[in-house]
Amino acid sequence: MTTQLDTLKARFEEAKAENLDLDMRRGKPGPEQLDLSLAMLDLVTADDYRTATGDDPRNYGGLDGIPEMKSFFKEFLEVSSEAEVVIGGNSSLTLMHDTVARAMSHGVAGSEKPWGKLDKVKFICPSPGYDRHFAICEHFGIEMITVDIDADGPNMEQVEALVKADDSIKGIWVVPKYANPTGLTVSEEVVYRLANMTTAANDFRIFWDNAYAVHHLNEEGDALANILEACKAANQADRVFIFGSTSKITFAGSGVSAVAGSENNMEWLRGHLAFQTIGPDKLNQVRHMRFFKDFNGLKEHMKKHAAIIKPKFDAVLEVLERELGGKGLANWTNPNGGYFISLDLNEGQAKKVVALANELGVKLTGAGATFPYKNDPKDSNIRLAPTYPSIEEIKKAMEVVCLCVELAASSEA
Amino acid sequence: MTTQLDTLKARFEEAKAENLDLDMRRGKPGPEQLDLSLAMLDLVTADDYRTATGDDPRNYGGLDGIPEMKSFFKEFLEVSSEAEVVIGGNSSLTLMHDTVARAMSHGVAGSEKPWGKLDKVKFICPSPGYDRHFAICEHFGIEMITVDIDADGPNMEQVEALVKADDSIKGIWVVPKYANPTGLTVSEEVVYRLANMTTAANDFRIFWDNAYAVHHLNEEGDALANILEACKAANQADRVFIFGSTSKITFAGSGVSAVAGSENNMEWLRGHLAFQTIGPDKLNQVRHMRFFKDFNGLKEHMKKHAAIIKPKFDAVLEVLERELGGKGLANWTNPNGGYFISLDLNEGQAKKVVALANELGVKLTGAGATFPYKNDPKDSNIRLAPTYPSIEEIKKAMEVVCLCVELAASSEA
Repeated sequence: MTTQLDTLKARFEEAKAENLDLDMRRGKPGPEQLDLSLAMLDLVTADDYRTATGDDPRNYGGLDGIPEMKSFFKEFLEVSSEAEVVIGGNSSLTLMHDTVARAMSHGVAGSEKPWGKLDKVKFICPSPGYDRHFAICEHFGIEMITVDIDADGPNMEQVEALVKADDSIKGIWVVPKYANPTGLTVSEEVVYRLANMTTAANDFRIFWDNAYAVHHLNEEGDALANILEACKAANQADRVFIFGSTSKITFAGSGVSAVAGSENNMEWLRGHLAFQTIGPDKLNQVRHMRFFKDFNGLKEHMKKHAAIIKPKFDAVLEVLERELGGKGLANWTNPNGGYFISLDLNEGQAKKVVALANELGVKLTGAGATFPYKNDPKDSNIRLAPTYPSIEEIKKAMEVVCLCVELAASSEA
Repeated sequence: MTTQLDTLKARFEEAKAENLDLDMRRGKPGPEQLDLSLAMLDLVTADDYRTATGDDPRNYGGLDGIPEMKSFFKEFLEVSSEAEVVIGGNSSLTLMHDTVARAMSHGVAGSEKPWGKLDKVKFICPSPGYDRHFAICEHFGIEMITVDIDADGPNMEQVEALVKADDSIKGIWVVPKYANPTGLTVSEEVVYRLANMTTAANDFRIFWDNAYAVHHLNEEGDALANILEACKAANQADRVFIFGSTSKITFAGSGVSAVAGSENNMEWLRGHLAFQTIGPDKLNQVRHMRFFKDFNGLKEHMKKHAAIIKPKFDAVLEVLERELGGKGLANWTNPNGGYFISLDLNEGQAKKVVALANELGVKLTGAGATFPYKNDPKDSNIRLAPTYPSIEEIKKAMEVVCLCVELAASSEA
């Protein structure tokens, strides 16, 4: 008699014979998405390159960006004045890394001493989260404390208890909207509690990585409460740094990044930037502004992205539902935006499934990668990145993933 | 009887009445120089944007630059392989700042501990030098030790004695070619001695800011010995970081920067960069490579810069010679390249002259700016930057400067 396990094993061998080479790891735009911004390459020319105010962007100057780019990111990052915005180079990751680096070497505004001079510095890392945030902490010797992520964001009971008790806890990473990898958006209550919680450290900072601020998959996007407004209302205006970029909007690696926060925080940042740079690439800022025209232009542009990637997300969800629905082997998120779907298996299954899929030529993000120290305590989370492969590749890859989930579970039974 | 002082004072009042507004401070390209690179803006278009190898530069990837850009800077920075090159963003200042920052937070390759964990870190600062180098040191709490600059570079007796005796001395800044502000080029002997000197610190680094590597004013440029080769020959391959960029070649602020050094140093750097960025803007690298085609293309391009700025340097020198020649009031450099002329007054005159010129509407770089802690011990050096103003403006400004030099000297007598 053929058991279910035999059937799964037979399917596994069949799939192996196909010599697949598929990749569900990469949270990067697909070529069709990049094509959406191609016109931008023709908008700054030898004959026509000046800023909106007629200034020459080809020379030194402009430490924190050209005026129209600051106005644009003022709307994008939802702050109230250009003085609350600093434009960066091609990467918000660099802005985040450098902000942590400056905090370690000098402290932030109001620090009694550089964080690097303290015996210990800790960050709260709601997980699963973004591996590069955790890598920055590890690089600077910052101890990471994992807290859970609930449907409405970081588990605030855990967060509040931690920050109140321990003045070596200096920061928290939050991807507030369509989070990497869960796709969830932080609720208004969580925003309020983050702004109002009592922290033992008087120079505690929220690193608010709003990487997917405008990356909706559906017409009706998630609403996100305004963290800077909330912090100001709580008399904690300096508590938050807000990061964003056009990397997954125009060209990944040739976009424009920005950071926002209280005027006091931005003054602190400009004071540091003056030692590091004369200013970011202004010609690329002009290129971006001519392409978008204004923030409404960006919103229209994002609908074109959604039209391309929504069917890819749907393909993942369709296969998951068809192959694993109702079997009690996995849960997954159905995000309203962003770049990822988070797949939660039963405890102890993630590493096995990633290894099995790899054997079949389907590369998945390493199990554990979404947790501090690459350690998923339940070994259950797998991050799926559907934007780069084609729909056909996604379907094939997800069928393989589902087969591996079933096989891993059955082998154990 | 009218004295010479009366005449000078009368001329001063006349000049004042002209309400001049001239600026000799800015070491930045003039608009005609920027026009030389305008064609670059049309070389990456919606239809045609790929790298030389046909790769797509619009997406993430390429931590240390596209292959052809690395080959280009291999020649530019005169190292022997692409593995000895890392491409940066739009600013070599950022590469220098970040290298110091990394050394402070983590140490360089071979450091026993992060420099920031030591009781004291000191750098040798040959002076007059580049104010932004000194500012980086001050920002990171690095103590600066001033040494003299002779006609062939840093005074090596002073340097050798210092680094041999003190293991807290971790670095030296050198602008080896057409230095800021002296315009002098380091001799082969000085290169040899820098590579071979005994340093008490085993992780000592030369910060070799070759900002004016190709910025000749005359057909026959200064020759500069190869520092990395010299360090390798001295069995000190890791001793040097070499920095360069196209900022004063194409567009200032929208150029491409690079750092070079031993493979070991570049591996160290790549290891750090991976936490800070996914990689520099590749589209701008493609733009640059299409414009230059190869390193010979760059050399031809630099002749066009020379044709524009040589007459500006000549204008400064002509007025200095005409107004101050043989009077014993000043010496000045006659550089073979670079962006500056260095004016040395008699002791105690620089601040007075800068203030007087300012009164007449001619802005000069602050006296002392070219020394650590903005402190010129002799108060004699003034940096003149002739590239940005027009020739007419330069002549007028320099006549004012010379008048102020004479007046300052006479008022004292």
